[in-house]
Amino acid sequence: MIPYPQMSSEEREAEYQHLLAQFEDLKAQNLKLNMARGKPGEDQLNLTRGIFDIMRSPEDYLSDGIEVRNYGEMTGLPAAKRLFAEVLGCREDQVFVGGNASLQLMYDTVAKGYTHGLLHSSRPWCKEEKLKWLCPAPGYDRHFKITESFGFELITVPMTDNGPDMDMVENAVKDPAVKGMWTVPKYSNPDGIVYSEETIRCIASLKPAAPDFLLMWDNAYCIHDLEDGCETLPDILTLCASYGNPDMVFEFASTSKITLPGAGISCFACSEDNMTYMKKLLDAQVISYDKVNQQRHVLYLKDKAHMIELMRKHAEILRPKFQCVLDALNQEIAPLNIASWRHPKGGYFVSLNAMPGTAKRTLVLCKEAGVTMTNAGATFPYGKDPQDSNIRIAPSFPSVNELKKAVSVLCVCLKLSALEKLNKQ
Amino acid sequence: MIPYPQMSSEEREAEYQHLLAQFEDLKAQNLKLNMARGKPGEDQLNLTRGIFDIMRSPEDYLSDGIEVRNYGEMTGLPAAKRLFAEVLGCREDQVFVGGNASLQLMYDTVAKGYTHGLLHSSRPWCKEEKLKWLCPAPGYDRHFKITESFGFELITVPMTDNGPDMDMVENAVKDPAVKGMWTVPKYSNPDGIVYSEETIRCIASLKPAAPDFLLMWDNAYCIHDLEDGCETLPDILTLCASYGNPDMVFEFASTSKITLPGAGISCFACSEDNMTYMKKLLDAQVISYDKVNQQRHVLYLKDKAHMIELMRKHAEILRPKFQCVLDALNQEIAPLNIASWRHPKGGYFVSLNAMPGTAKRTLVLCKEAGVTMTNAGATFPYGKDPQDSNIRIAPSFPSVNELKKAVSVLCVCLKLSALEKLNKQ
Repeated sequence: MIPYPQMSSEEREAEYQHLLAQFEDLKAQNLKLNMARGKPGEDQLNLTRGIFDIMRSPEDYLSDGIEVRNYGEMTGLPAAKRLFAEVLGCREDQVFVGGNASLQLMYDTVAKGYTHGLLHSSRPWCKEEKLKWLCPAPGYDRHFKITESFGFELITVPMTDNGPDMDMVENAVKDPAVKGMWTVPKYSNPDGIVYSEETIRCIASLKPAAPDFLLMWDNAYCIHDLEDGCETLPDILTLCASYGNPDMVFEFASTSKITLPGAGISCFACSEDNMTYMKKLLDAQVISYDKVNQQRHVLYLKDKAHMIELMRKHAEILRPKFQCVLDALNQEIAPLNIASWRHPKGGYFVSLNAMPGTAKRTLVLCKEAGVTMTNAGATFPYGKDPQDSNIRIAPSFPSVNELKKAVSVLCVCLKLSALEKLNKQ
Repeated sequence: MIPYPQMSSEEREAEYQHLLAQFEDLKAQNLKLNMARGKPGEDQLNLTRGIFDIMRSPEDYLSDGIEVRNYGEMTGLPAAKRLFAEVLGCREDQVFVGGNASLQLMYDTVAKGYTHGLLHSSRPWCKEEKLKWLCPAPGYDRHFKITESFGFELITVPMTDNGPDMDMVENAVKDPAVKGMWTVPKYSNPDGIVYSEETIRCIASLKPAAPDFLLMWDNAYCIHDLEDGCETLPDILTLCASYGNPDMVFEFASTSKITLPGAGISCFACSEDNMTYMKKLLDAQVISYDKVNQQRHVLYLKDKAHMIELMRKHAEILRPKFQCVLDALNQEIAPLNIASWRHPKGGYFVSLNAMPGTAKRTLVLCKEAGVTMTNAGATFPYGKDPQDSNIRIAPSFPSVNELKKAVSVLCVCLKLSALEKLNKQ
């Protein structure tokens, strides 16, 4: 196959007509497939059936002597803190265990800065003239929307193979209006990039002008490896403290993609001083999160080793799905020189960069053929990809058979939109 | 027994010495009793053992065709909405089902006004010069703390036998800085007052100067009757709408004192326009609340009639506890003319008004004798009871035997502090 850019316009026209016919065939199948969100599939949900009746006897209602069925223990069950502390490599007293969603804890942390200010704020952020926030992109649309909803100016920071472009970050934090940065340090959403140790050290040692700069460390995929023997990141709390920034970072994690999406437990981890400060603010908001569900998770997940075993089972289900996407791209798209993509070793996404100016068009075509994808641009601040290139593929939810069909649709649409673009040039 | 105010100072001195001896005896028993918070007791927790393994088979994972174990359905399961709608007497589409705590939903509603403004706000509340809030008192300390934490000036509204003093409320809402009011319309915390229909109509027909005035209708004890045949309040959403105030009210409820405290489900109910507005704001914050726990509750609670049956069992446990407190007060305190109290027909508290100027001292003495009570003043804005009189008794948590002991301590302390006060006069 000749790469599209090298084709003559006649060759392109022939190829286009050929693909159009394929596309009409696909449309006629009335497909209804979804690769939009990082939702675990049904077989993954079934891995944790045992959690539904794990609390069987009266002694299960007690955890470290605490009656889990009654009010109290705002910061969470000690046993649940120990579990997260082991996974994240921090100390138990640095962990606050929340409800079913780390996203809500993240929103709430930014909201606290906005309404009350953080530990080192001179005033609440809502009293500031101008607020800015660093958004490594491509990134997680829901992160960006949180800070957008509070009126922050979102500053795009390009991603490199090692994480965010740190030259740009170091320069940007000289502006005291820059109040924080989103990060997904392991298997970044959507690129699947693992931040290098150098990048992580560079982040931990930042000297932001804002004394209340907030590093949002979303360790969403901390043990979500597709293969054995994947790397473990250094503990960011220790690292920040060692560089004199103990209060700069809040780390987040959840069991949403370990046990049940939207019915798991979540946590934030932070310095002792931040914990004291946040507890005081949270005391007006929270009596306690759902300790019964915390106890279910403690009993079911047991410890990190046991969790890793469970994550291996998730990986066994996910690996063929990732492979299916990558195989199709390698076979169908690679020879054409119209797109590039990464081969993630964990997380929930394959990030594809289509020929600039064709991502939106590709996804319009996908939709016409019954395949729903994350909106083009969603991985950038304000939902606007300046290159109109990045496409986030979420292969976890469909079955392998559905996925094969969905990816073949995507490939046809990528080709069609590339040819349209090339023919216009 | 001669009422204390009529005693001669010699008689009082003799009585005081007699009581001091009793008090020393009580202290020597090293009691550790708690009547501080409205926590259900262990026997109440055991009523709902069946909820722990109610999701047994694969069909239990589906509700109206929705997979409850996966992400999605931000506003909650339709079946859970139907359940709350039936209990509250509103429509299913007016209900948003949340997580384990209505308090968090309340905090969040006030927070949304503060950070983004409500539907009819001209600007977010954080941009206003001055913010005020109406607090019928005695009231719920956690309500007051929410608005205090956002910097509202708290305005105390006296409670009457029929609810808040509406002359004062009608006058107060003429001030556009007054942005809202807390209410607990049925079995108000702590008085156990049921707002009269006239009061409720008066509230629903308010014409506040602030276009974004927020009526916080905390229907915490909507079906929490101690006796059969208790009254049902008119639906506040319908009533507000009928007076041209459809968007003025947010109603709240939870199953915390129906199933499990801190592990139940909660909701808010509001107008269609408010729902549309809040959904847009919540979209940045919430993917979904815990639908698995919503499904547990739908399967376990079934419908309102079945819930009322369960509430009868709670009442059977609670009634003797309330009776124990009231019996002791009637026998020990009534003849002395040093305090008054109410006989609530539901809810979780007995509200006692001690001789003015003696509440704090009474609770210091209680603590010395090993009985923990809600802080004196907690039922008033800023934790300051201008009369130093109101004491909230929470009889639900201790066993009847513990309660007998705890109330006898309280009675001795009430007497001692009254005599100290009278002797100083």
